[in-house]
Amino acid sequence: MDAVNHQFRLAARPDGMVGPEHFDYVEEPLPELTDGQVLVKTAYISLDPAMRGWMAEGRSYIPPVQIGEVMRAGTVGEVLESKGQKLAVGDQVTGWLGVQEYAVCDENAVFKVDAGEIPLTTYLGALGMPGLTAYFGLLDVGAPKEGETVVVSGAAGAVGSVVGQIAKIKGCRVVGIAGGPEKCAWIVEELGFDAAIDYKGEDVGEALRKHCPEGVDVYFDNVGGDILDAALARLARGARVVICGAISQYNKMTSMSGPSNYMSLLVNRARMEGFVVIDYMGRAPEAVGEMAGWIAEGKLVAREDVVEGFESFPHALQKLFRGENVGKLVLKV
Amino acid sequence: MDAVNHQFRLAARPDGMVGPEHFDYVEEPLPELTDGQVLVKTAYISLDPAMRGWMAEGRSYIPPVQIGEVMRAGTVGEVLESKGQKLAVGDQVTGWLGVQEYAVCDENAVFKVDAGEIPLTTYLGALGMPGLTAYFGLLDVGAPKEGETVVVSGAAGAVGSVVGQIAKIKGCRVVGIAGGPEKCAWIVEELGFDAAIDYKGEDVGEALRKHCPEGVDVYFDNVGGDILDAALARLARGARVVICGAISQYNKMTSMSGPSNYMSLLVNRARMEGFVVIDYMGRAPEAVGEMAGWIAEGKLVAREDVVEGFESFPHALQKLFRGENVGKLVLKV
Repeated sequence: MDAVNHQFRLAARPDGMVGPEHFDYVEEPLPELTDGQVLVKTAYISLDPAMRGWMAEGRSYIPPVQIGEVMRAGTVGEVLESKGQKLAVGDQVTGWLGVQEYAVCDENAVFKVDAGEIPLTTYLGALGMPGLTAYFGLLDVGAPKEGETVVVSGAAGAVGSVVGQIAKIKGCRVVGIAGGPEKCAWIVEELGFDAAIDYKGEDVGEALRKHCPEGVDVYFDNVGGDILDAALARLARGARVVICGAISQYNKMTSMSGPSNYMSLLVNRARMEGFVVIDYMGRAPEAVGEMAGWIAEGKLVAREDVVEGFESFPHALQKLFRGENVGKLVLKV
Repeated sequence: MDAVNHQFRLAARPDGMVGPEHFDYVEEPLPELTDGQVLVKTAYISLDPAMRGWMAEGRSYIPPVQIGEVMRAGTVGEVLESKGQKLAVGDQVTGWLGVQEYAVCDENAVFKVDAGEIPLTTYLGALGMPGLTAYFGLLDVGAPKEGETVVVSGAAGAVGSVVGQIAKIKGCRVVGIAGGPEKCAWIVEELGFDAAIDYKGEDVGEALRKHCPEGVDVYFDNVGGDILDAALARLARGARVVICGAISQYNKMTSMSGPSNYMSLLVNRARMEGFVVIDYMGRAPEAVGEMAGWIAEGKLVAREDVVEGFESFPHALQKLFRGENVGKLVLKV
């Protein structure tokens, strides 16, 4: 295998919006495989809000990407060569192989996926980290009960779109907050949400009052900022606020905004809780199995927004933070 | 009974610091007792941070005090006349009789206390609402385990001083945050806290790093603002943040500050939860019994800071918000 491997490596830590200037586009030869290793050709790269956090210095739930390292990313791809025991040429696998066209890795660092019935890209979306994040964040942390009102922000995104659909499957009333009429129409008409709030065109607080007359029992937050504050102001008694992300805050030059309505937690005897999906990896097969069943039954719609061209990685990542994707954003290599 | 009753009635809703201009000092004759009623002479009036919230308009856990109403307050006093079945002249009682020298009320609206061994004022402090708030907030919401690190703000106040002592009784390492060397010395030397942080003289973040090398397992917050943010930055994995109050924010002219470090909840898989002590009233006898036992054994120190003179009520209340009290602040009538 004489192919040249192209990679995006972290060049600088961003202060504000992430952009091409924070990455080096490099090429290097592929190393020889040693025993137990496989060569994987990347098919799709996952673009996730969490990547912005991994580029920043400082203590978090996993170490930051170091300057000069290949940018961390989830991937799906195909085994081109194998010196392993379990994986064979032609197998399709998912793993954390980073923003590169090829990767040589231990065969145990990737997982074989059954991409017969289900598109490979779905293993980066509804059956990948975003889907698991939605599943465990909603069901374990949010713990919605049938008949409760669930509100999710970033509702047309990879996580939010699955959160809302699982909440519907569980018999909840579901309101999604998203930006723009296209996204709002999609989550109501295609995904079956009960209502959508267009934060770009509506006053979120007023819309929540209208769509959640009994208050919000579970609020699943992907965005932070003013929308989190608006949701806090509408909590029902005993509400659970699930902190999954804060995409509105990640690229700010100034420090994060805190939720000034947090005392609503006291008034409403409510809790706000964070989680990291990595902690649930032991239970991933259970969740993937159940969600694959829902997809097969047509109860869960998995949609990926595919950007083409490996070189466009930095611009594709910006698209994510500008909220321009509908469904799970992936880069086709 | 021809006595004249003096009262403080709410005259205006404060925007910033509460003061004499927000109350009317009035006098009125006492009404005749009807069947089932008692006349109670107020001995002590409880001064609590929550009073600031009750003076504000808007949805909260109990309705606001209306303009013209006697200001709501917890009280202890003595029965001077009784047309009830259960209470007799000379009984000492506690209840929500408001900021007035006398009150005529249904005998079921007050509770008889056994003030033989324990000072009457303690029924407004460690054995009253603040003590119950500390007991249920710490044990039920914070749920500390032996050996964990518990940090409490407002640590020399009515609630915080009890929180820290209960945490010590439960085998925790306890760090208190208070303002000034006198309070800090008191909580360590008299109450047995492991360490004190003087937020007026120290960088709270650095001091937390020093005193909580393994992070903060339970943070019991009475103050909000910068101190809440500093504590969030030092959470241990799986930490519980108990939202009890936000006294630093109550008298601000601008809107509340939200905790900009709230994403620490995600990184540390932590939760932040509010509660209202009223919800635990059914279990009050259990808590009062246990805490009275601790007081008798010398394990729980109950201290009240007594201001004399009914007329000084508005100024005494300001003392609370200026953090000038050590222990439970009460007004002697």
